[in-house]
Amino acid sequence: MAKLPSSIQRLINELSRLPGIGPKTAQRLAFYLLKKDSIDINNLSLAISQVKNGVTFCSVCHIMAETDPCGIDADPKRDHDVICVVEESLDALAIDKTGQFNGVFHVLGGVLNPLEGTGPEQLTINHLMQRVRQEEVKEIIIATNPSLEGETTAMHLAKLIKGVNQEIIKSGNQEIKVSRIARGLPMGGDLEYADDITLMRALEGRREY
Amino acid sequence: MAKLPSSIQRLINELSRLPGIGPKTAQRLAFYLLKKDSIDINNLSLAISQVKNGVTFCSVCHIMAETDPCGIDADPKRDHDVICVVEESLDALAIDKTGQFNGVFHVLGGVLNPLEGTGPEQLTINHLMQRVRQEEVKEIIIATNPSLEGETTAMHLAKLIKGVNQEIIKSGNQEIKVSRIARGLPMGGDLEYADDITLMRALEGRREY
Repeated sequence: MAKLPSSIQRLINELSRLPGIGPKTAQRLAFYLLKKDSIDINNLSLAISQVKNGVTFCSVCHIMAETDPCGIDADPKRDHDVICVVEESLDALAIDKTGQFNGVFHVLGGVLNPLEGTGPEQLTINHLMQRVRQEEVKEIIIATNPSLEGETTAMHLAKLIKGVNQEIIKSGNQEIKVSRIARGLPMGGDLEYADDITLMRALEGRREY
Repeated sequence: MAKLPSSIQRLINELSRLPGIGPKTAQRLAFYLLKKDSIDINNLSLAISQVKNGVTFCSVCHIMAETDPCGIDADPKRDHDVICVVEESLDALAIDKTGQFNGVFHVLGGVLNPLEGTGPEQLTINHLMQRVRQEEVKEIIIATNPSLEGETTAMHLAKLIKGVNQEIIKSGNQEIKVSRIARGLPMGGDLEYADDITLMRALEGRREY
């Protein structure tokens, strides 16, 4: 029986381990690379081996960055009293890219998921509560994903912050506003194909003209 | 505006250049790799940079192999007088894997495609005709893909071999049999959903019980 050269077989095996890449895609990618010149191959190889170089996490907001504190937290022009809480660094970057948010972020590092063993200790929730207590925060925008886990995490955080608000009211200070990003039909979405929960949220969150 | 660390952005750019991998998939892969430990990352990086190591092409049949001649051509137990003509090395491996073919191969290196500038000179057709003339060949099985280009290439090859057959008949020798792999409904296929050409070929190629 004929066999593939071992170097190609090895690359196919390695590529198949990546998420969303099956044996057929891995094979196609391996043969694509085989036909590329050495410079392109080495560029990719180097980019992979150096992916962790210079990547650090901001000690203020836990975002993935090249500096600590990150560019956002170090920027005096941002509103440091508005904190947007997200699951992952990419979520923060996506929100920042809209240009509509001028506050700072707090990256949780995931969502509460008891089935997968992710409790509050695995996330940066304690540090968030510390920030809420120590910094002069006006508003917390909870922007976890609109999934079951994301909603649960959002409710848990809202409850915690309301607890802090009780203390703040007692001390006579302005309480912290807690908000959740809007859920509804996405732009370009089709009412006909929207699921029940999305439609329900869209009705609940309706706004007067 | 916040930005991704440059090492991650660079990996995303490199991955996006692979076929079938868009910016979103590249981003997902980059973050997956970022979370992996260094050993896994280095294994992948090394497999990519070494993909060409030890890969050569058989000078007899042009298949991708680790030795020249390849394992198939060097095997005295194979029928060297039956040549199966395929487009790419992977096609030969797929046919070999069935265990139903005990002949040898000839890899064309592609198909005739005038629009993309692939003429007979870009393929190993001349070498095939040389083999047909010099080796004592009994049968040529043309196993190019059942695509427009594959069929055109198959017809072109059949015509060339028939030309050689004229010479062989004149010299009083046994002429070479030329065949084309069967086209019809694939196993597990559904007649209802088959396209017209496939159904036409399935009817044309019907066999008596």
